[in-house]
Amino acid sequence: MRHFLTLKDFSKDEILEILSLAVKIKRKAKKGKFNPYLKDKVLGMIFEKSSTRTRVSFEVGIHQLGGKGLFLSTDDIQLGRGEPLKDTARVLSRMVDMVMIRTFGQDRLEEFAKYSSVPLISGLSDTYHPMQLLADYMTICEYGKDKNLVAAYVGDGNNIANSWLMLASKIGFELRISTPKGYEADQDVLKNAYEFAKKSGSKISICENPKDAVKNAGVVTTDTWVSMGQEDEKEKRIKYFEGFMIDKKMMALAKKDAIFLHCLPAYRGYEVSDEVFEAHANEIFDEAENRLHVQKAVMVWLDRQRKN
Amino acid sequence: MRHFLTLKDFSKDEILEILSLAVKIKRKAKKGKFNPYLKDKVLGMIFEKSSTRTRVSFEVGIHQLGGKGLFLSTDDIQLGRGEPLKDTARVLSRMVDMVMIRTFGQDRLEEFAKYSSVPLISGLSDTYHPMQLLADYMTICEYGKDKNLVAAYVGDGNNIANSWLMLASKIGFELRISTPKGYEADQDVLKNAYEFAKKSGSKISICENPKDAVKNAGVVTTDTWVSMGQEDEKEKRIKYFEGFMIDKKMMALAKKDAIFLHCLPAYRGYEVSDEVFEAHANEIFDEAENRLHVQKAVMVWLDRQRKN
Amino acid sequence: MRHFLTLKDFSKDEILEILSLAVKIKRKAKKGKFNPYLKDKVLGMIFEKSSTRTRVSFEVGIHQLGGKGLFLSTDDIQLGRGEPLKDTARVLSRMVDMVMIRTFGQDRLEEFAKYSSVPLISGLSDTYHPMQLLADYMTICEYGKDKNLVAAYVGDGNNIANSWLMLASKIGFELRISTPKGYEADQDVLKNAYEFAKKSGSKISICENPKDAVKNAGVVTTDTWVSMGQEDEKEKRIKYFEGFMIDKKMMALAKKDAIFLHCLPAYRGYEVSDEVFEAHANEIFDEAENRLHVQKAVMVWLDRQRKN
Repeated sequence: MRHFLTLKDFSKDEILEILSLAVKIKRKAKKGKFNPYLKDKVLGMIFEKSSTRTRVSFEVGIHQLGGKGLFLSTDDIQLGRGEPLKDTARVLSRMVDMVMIRTFGQDRLEEFAKYSSVPLISGLSDTYHPMQLLADYMTICEYGKDKNLVAAYVGDGNNIANSWLMLASKIGFELRISTPKGYEADQDVLKNAYEFAKKSGSKISICENPKDAVKNAGVVTTDTWVSMGQEDEKEKRIKYFEGFMIDKKMMALAKKDAIFLHCLPAYRGYEVSDEVFEAHANEIFDEAENRLHVQKAVMVWLDRQRKN
Repeated sequence: MRHFLTLKDFSKDEILEILSLAVKIKRKAKKGKFNPYLKDKVLGMIFEKSSTRTRVSFEVGIHQLGGKGLFLSTDDIQLGRGEPLKDTARVLSRMVDMVMIRTFGQDRLEEFAKYSSVPLISGLSDTYHPMQLLADYMTICEYGKDKNLVAAYVGDGNNIANSWLMLASKIGFELRISTPKGYEADQDVLKNAYEFAKKSGSKISICENPKDAVKNAGVVTTDTWVSMGQEDEKEKRIKYFEGFMIDKKMMALAKKDAIFLHCLPAYRGYEVSDEVFEAHANEIFDEAENRLHVQKAVMVWLDRQRKN
Repeated sequence: MRHFLTLKDFSKDEILEILSLAVKIKRKAKKGKFNPYLKDKVLGMIFEKSSTRTRVSFEVGIHQLGGKGLFLSTDDIQLGRGEPLKDTARVLSRMVDMVMIRTFGQDRLEEFAKYSSVPLISGLSDTYHPMQLLADYMTICEYGKDKNLVAAYVGDGNNIANSWLMLASKIGFELRISTPKGYEADQDVLKNAYEFAKKSGSKISICENPKDAVKNAGVVTTDTWVSMGQEDEKEKRIKYFEGFMIDKKMMALAKKDAIFLHCLPAYRGYEVSDEVFEAHANEIFDEAENRLHVQKAVMVWLDRQRKN
């Protein structure tokens, strides 16, 4: 049995296999065809943080696979009353066929997985957001930008930055990361990425100046400067992140046909200008939609692994 | 593609077409037959205000149509964290087939509709509650009160009053509205209603004295004096609404066989006496049930428009 | 039409009939077979208290029966805004096919049932938790402990204790209850239990010393000392409950092959030691899983009663 907690645990071939399944599932869905791969199966969905895209895409996704999503917010269940995660894991394993958790520490995912007898899927943690990166790479491929890919991530060295490091170093493309001082990507993740990059041929660079990162990149991306739970650092962060906004001037440094991705929600005037956002809205909402398709693929893939 | 945001946008023929579909759907449902008109379709349901009837009737309704309702409260999604409505609209459009919103300003519905590529349904706003009025008119027809109909709305000049103005002026029946001074129906809505009434032959009157409104009416109705969000005005409102309660004496002024409708929740001893409420409980709970049937009809109708 | 509000209303034969149905449903489910006993039916699920097991088991259960569970928390619906329960009962009766409520006073269940035209199921009240006890007895039977059964309940004289009294006195097995002074089981329930015990042959004893209760018992069980809503009594309760923890020494007094049950959530170091909990985790999580199966059986049984 496999879990889906971080791309770190997946080989390049496995990632590509999942994405290829996602492409197939998307193509059929566009014709109104939904293969009931997970008929009668129930996906438990625990949200310790609120969410629009993760919530909707998982619940719609499992429904279109013939199964049922069961939405559990921390307010609704007893995790919020201090029940040990290992007990919740063992109870849910008895009642549902797969579990998705959006949570804080990556260690919570690992603890749950340890006691779970059904596959566990990360719907985001403080360290990683692997599902988002699958959707991003699917979008990159759809726009034909995966050949000789140079991607630039500019902004907060958060879970999205960490996940870009995992994706690039596994797939083998060039990634340039530029974050303000004090907001770097996780050093352990970076170390792992350098390790994986040796094998995959990926080039990972850290750029002090965001302009150096974006220069001639085919894909430019960023994320909010103030993630959930950091609201009281907002003013301080905005000051430190000055110069890291992706605006028209910054995008002009990238390749002429570069695409811009954003995992949303987007805060115009902070990490991205309204002008850039709306100019690249097609890519951004394709990227959002692809969450639906890759998540369906991951669920089907995990279910197949279980049977093997 | 059409949206369902207010009866203002619908012709008399369209309203009657939807109601005729609702009658057909109800008749079949009573025999335990559920036609899967919306098989595999997903209805996103955003609640910015809490609700019993709207919630249950939409979620049961789409299920009985073969689809799935996805309940999203503002606490659960990132609308509550200040994501622009236009982004939520564009994301949801990629993942679901229809959206229902219960919200505050009617402008929020219009903004969402502008960016939505799927049909949008109002589940109530501060200005209108069109679905409730369809259920009310369906109930009026079931009780055979639609011929030479004179309807009296007594109480707060709120979204329900506004929607009665739309219904009456579109369909062409007589409507008398009586509200305390300072709590009149929306003046723009009233203006529109007078305009529509010219064409439909509806007679709209504003009565200072609630007794004049109720006199010989075939349908009497009211709504809570204190809607959600007005709790701190409660004492003041109760004082101003003195004399507007529908009690036994007031109902005695209406036609002998008049029916009494209430969209619920009802506050006995305020807008209606317990005695009147319980004497007319059959009509009131038929009216509540009809929410289910008309909403199913609206969803099917909108889906058909999309295909045309 | 029957409701399921307490075991008090059920005969021994009826309880065994439901359990036999649960065994059949579980056996099929283990082979991946789900009989759509409640196809197209909707179960309204009202939670006035939060829950993991009750929530998940009901929502998964009705889904596996071919129906749909509609989760309504008090925050989401207008019960929380003071709508009379009898109005909610009458509205829901028009829209759903069965209702489950987790609530405070048992009188709320009775009030709802009085006005409901569809079967009502208790998902726990301050007085009883009948569904839990069906799951417990199913587990006892699976472990072959129902012959000459002696069960010991040690701890808070709460809804679980009350429900053990109902189960034992209906089925006819020996039950020993030991609670600290001031935390005894409900005296009316106890009186009823003594009455039922006369017919069934059950032996009910109240033991001052928990060791006397556990001595040679085949089944030992307890529950949290601090139920939801009692958080501010925590310190006081912990003091009064000293000596009532089920630890290794206590369990050593029971039969050698005794099983230990816990309805969860469990608080290690209070009502049960971590050692005892983990040594008996198999039984405890079987017990949790059996909630799913007995609840499906109760729903099917109630639906059959309705048709008869």
